[in-house]
Amino acid sequence: MDCGEATQLQLKRYKLRAQRINNIFISHLHGDHYLGLMGLLSTMHLMGRKEKLNLYGPKGLSEIITMQLKYSETVFNYEINFVEVDTTIHKVVHEDDFVKVYSIPLNHRVPCSGYLFAEKKKNRRIKKDTLPADFSVKNIIRLKHGEDILDEEGNLLYKNAALTLPARRSFTYAFCSDTKYDESIIPLIKDVDLLYHESTFMDEHAERASITYHSTAKEAATIAKKAEVGKLILGHFSVRYRELEPIRDEARTVFENADLAIEGEEFILED
Amino acid sequence: MDCGEATQLQLKRYKLRAQRINNIFISHLHGDHYLGLMGLLSTMHLMGRKEKLNLYGPKGLSEIITMQLKYSETVFNYEINFVEVDTTIHKVVHEDDFVKVYSIPLNHRVPCSGYLFAEKKKNRRIKKDTLPADFSVKNIIRLKHGEDILDEEGNLLYKNAALTLPARRSFTYAFCSDTKYDESIIPLIKDVDLLYHESTFMDEHAERASITYHSTAKEAATIAKKAEVGKLILGHFSVRYRELEPIRDEARTVFENADLAIEGEEFILED
Repeated sequence: MDCGEATQLQLKRYKLRAQRINNIFISHLHGDHYLGLMGLLSTMHLMGRKEKLNLYGPKGLSEIITMQLKYSETVFNYEINFVEVDTTIHKVVHEDDFVKVYSIPLNHRVPCSGYLFAEKKKNRRIKKDTLPADFSVKNIIRLKHGEDILDEEGNLLYKNAALTLPARRSFTYAFCSDTKYDESIIPLIKDVDLLYHESTFMDEHAERASITYHSTAKEAATIAKKAEVGKLILGHFSVRYRELEPIRDEARTVFENADLAIEGEEFILED
Repeated sequence: MDCGEATQLQLKRYKLRAQRINNIFISHLHGDHYLGLMGLLSTMHLMGRKEKLNLYGPKGLSEIITMQLKYSETVFNYEINFVEVDTTIHKVVHEDDFVKVYSIPLNHRVPCSGYLFAEKKKNRRIKKDTLPADFSVKNIIRLKHGEDILDEEGNLLYKNAALTLPARRSFTYAFCSDTKYDESIIPLIKDVDLLYHESTFMDEHAERASITYHSTAKEAATIAKKAEVGKLILGHFSVRYRELEPIRDEARTVFENADLAIEGEEFILED
């Protein structure tokens, strides 16, 4: 999600492999959200990528990439599937075996879309130590789908519950990059497990936030509270704030489970 | 000269102030030479720049910048004077009180221009401790220009040499970013004090260098030798080389005064 300048360097720093990325979602075309993209795509090419890459973003993104490829006289060795996201509507923009991704219309100075990631229903987990050694792949798939195992005459051989554990929960994550306070997103992100909401300013600069189409910590927390999300992480802090804890503390006055999205930080969602 | 991704970060690291930059020269439109430009220009805007910036580069550069400004719906608070450089000819592209800059046609996969920086003749240096206290600014300028000081009747008051030291030497620097070995640049960079010449490969990969329109260390050194430059610095090393000293050593077999252009390194030209 989003790709500011030097994203490549940060991936390297955190030992994340760029080539494992198959889908990139860009929220809007302000430089701090996409200027690292061209370099990342070029590096994927230079490192020998062959797999198709899906690139989701607002109108203009494909034109920017395509023009730069033209002048560098470069044809990538892999295909980029540009998907233009309509930033004014909430709809599914991506779906695969594991996740469905929806656009979230945001309220910023330029067309801007957040993204909601909804994991699909997961399989039941096989209890490996109880599994008979001669179990077929077909039966393992049946178990994962919650079915009992029958013999050829249809008699019960194994109850599913004897060989499996319940599936892990499917989580939802909403990424709301740059937006002013706007309650219209609340129904779209209702009950998500994790909400990233920008918090460029603090309440003392609420007017500045409104003029620049950004949010304060308190506003982000109000969205989190009204949408009854599990956890809120705050980011996109104005450089004017040397200390970030006060931003978090301001949010916590409204919504307790709030934290700062510091670069490199991991947030683990638990069952 | 040139502006790869994360140039902003490097300027910061080396405590160089971006706002002091008034002229940017881009050699060609491969990502490693210009992808940091849009971010740098944006930061200059955000930090309140008002002064005009001259931007020199091949056809396409202004279009790439302009399109990105369009989609970010941004109008900079300062003017960018785009100067399209014809990469096929050697001519003056910039001139101010201190320096003349010439294009150097290079031989690369895409239109590419090196740049030759020729300092103008410098003023004589005033010996401050010998200067009479009541000396006028007009007379100081006369001294800097090498004139003697006369009284109103035209009689000699001070010999210039008594109050000044000779001007410092004017230096020349040639920046040849990406190019295959091409002797046609030799007359253009003849006798420069400092030559930066790319050295992507070593001699063992000479064929690869030729195919990709790059140079080997030996080739860079051969250019330096034939152009009788003062000093050669080598750069743009392929990531395949873990150790860089062998690149320098290969160059030195042909041209002794060769060094590696390691990031952050300073090369001082002395009188």
